[in-house]
Amino acid sequence: MKVGFLQLRPKFGSVRENVRAAKSLLKDVSEATIVLPELFNTGYLFRAQDELMELSEPVTSGYTVGEMKKIAKRQTLNLIFGIAEKKSRKFYNTAVLVTSKGKLYTYQKTHLFDREKLFFSPGEKSYAVHEVDGVKIGMMVCFDWCFPEVTRVLALKGAEIICHPANLIMPYCLDAMRTRSIENRVFSITANRIGTEKRANMSLTFTGNSQVVDPSGNVLTSAGERSESLKIVEIDIEEAKNKAITTNNHLFKDRKVSLYKPLVRKYVG
Amino acid sequence: MKVGFLQLRPKFGSVRENVRAAKSLLKDVSEATIVLPELFNTGYLFRAQDELMELSEPVTSGYTVGEMKKIAKRQTLNLIFGIAEKKSRKFYNTAVLVTSKGKLYTYQKTHLFDREKLFFSPGEKSYAVHEVDGVKIGMMVCFDWCFPEVTRVLALKGAEIICHPANLIMPYCLDAMRTRSIENRVFSITANRIGTEKRANMSLTFTGNSQVVDPSGNVLTSAGERSESLKIVEIDIEEAKNKAITTNNHLFKDRKVSLYKPLVRKYVG
Repeated sequence: MKVGFLQLRPKFGSVRENVRAAKSLLKDVSEATIVLPELFNTGYLFRAQDELMELSEPVTSGYTVGEMKKIAKRQTLNLIFGIAEKKSRKFYNTAVLVTSKGKLYTYQKTHLFDREKLFFSPGEKSYAVHEVDGVKIGMMVCFDWCFPEVTRVLALKGAEIICHPANLIMPYCLDAMRTRSIENRVFSITANRIGTEKRANMSLTFTGNSQVVDPSGNVLTSAGERSESLKIVEIDIEEAKNKAITTNNHLFKDRKVSLYKPLVRKYVG
Repeated sequence: MKVGFLQLRPKFGSVRENVRAAKSLLKDVSEATIVLPELFNTGYLFRAQDELMELSEPVTSGYTVGEMKKIAKRQTLNLIFGIAEKKSRKFYNTAVLVTSKGKLYTYQKTHLFDREKLFFSPGEKSYAVHEVDGVKIGMMVCFDWCFPEVTRVLALKGAEIICHPANLIMPYCLDAMRTRSIENRVFSITANRIGTEKRANMSLTFTGNSQVVDPSGNVLTSAGERSESLKIVEIDIEEAKNKAITTNNHLFKDRKVSLYKPLVRKYVG
């Protein structure tokens, strides 16, 4: 199967322009699963919640998801992308999966980064795996990389490909995603953004270097940090079904769950 | 405080020679916490359990631990090192911590790698943190790196330094240990071995590159892959007490334990 990412340079606040840019870069692709960055349609650096009120959209009836569904259907694509979601007076940093057959799934980011906490609500739904064209897809968003629990739960639930829309600003995140692939023997696709956003007295530079990683931790393809970039590779999903890291080691059967109990205890620090 | 590692090239089966070599390389050091490799006194490639019967030792009365206790006391060192432990007719791949004040703690490797399963029993005791000179030390051994649960549990229990005796053969393990340090904001010290062991029709080459990593993932010092090497650095343990990765993010308070429940369920694959 063909999988890949579309690394973008979103312009803050220009939803229609950003969606058109993605549409244009995707125009020659078909029959693939493609991941786009977090908040690819709005940009990242919200200054206040009224901006979010204006730029966010409901998943089922919003402009961005509507356009992406049309592209997915017309070009036989499965698309995973990040948007600002508006839902019952709350806002979520949401990853959306639209399939070529018209199905729609969402994941609302659970681990919010820094100032996102000022505007977004954290997702509360459990990590879910979605079977699309016979392949099991799990979603996580950006800073979730720092919590090994997320990828682990998704992998234990059967995820074979981790789709990871991101707006990364720290250089080591992509190395950590290689670790996530290795320790779970899953494919991971991190779609990062590029560019610098300056708003009021804030400035962030995003690190690009989007990548597709195989279950052995090999980077199958990656982008640079300066250009918008579409990269697609052929993968054999069977590799992710094999959890044997040696003839005597099965990554999941070897887990010592009785010793892991402290992982699910509430923190009292 | 001063911490470091002693990277060694153990000779299979030559326990006294290996211990003497370590003693000799340590002779000018004092007032430091030093990690040595896994099974540093016996070598790694056991062919059968009778070899283990011959080369292993009880922790409390064995030759190796006795010698290491003397060095620790005489030179005011805390030493963490791996041995083959013999205990009630079972054998464990054990990390031992001997302190300058004569205390002794052990960790019996829980995640056995490949053929180790043929000879060793897995440890069943929970991951423990030991306070030594006011600093909280956690131990893990080699292949435990592949299970993020181990470092996470130790860090949640308060470990500030993860001491990691190893006999690594896969190149990406040391990168994964950087991820472990970052995701838990702990120091990690991986003491790896070097050299090739050939026994019967088996051959393994160990990758060296021992390292000390700080809570931000910086490699403070590291060794090559060809030489025995003692490296010591000064660290500020306060860095590991600060779990804030941004002003709004506390690595442990941000964990969504209610979503992590699948981590402690028995695997039924």
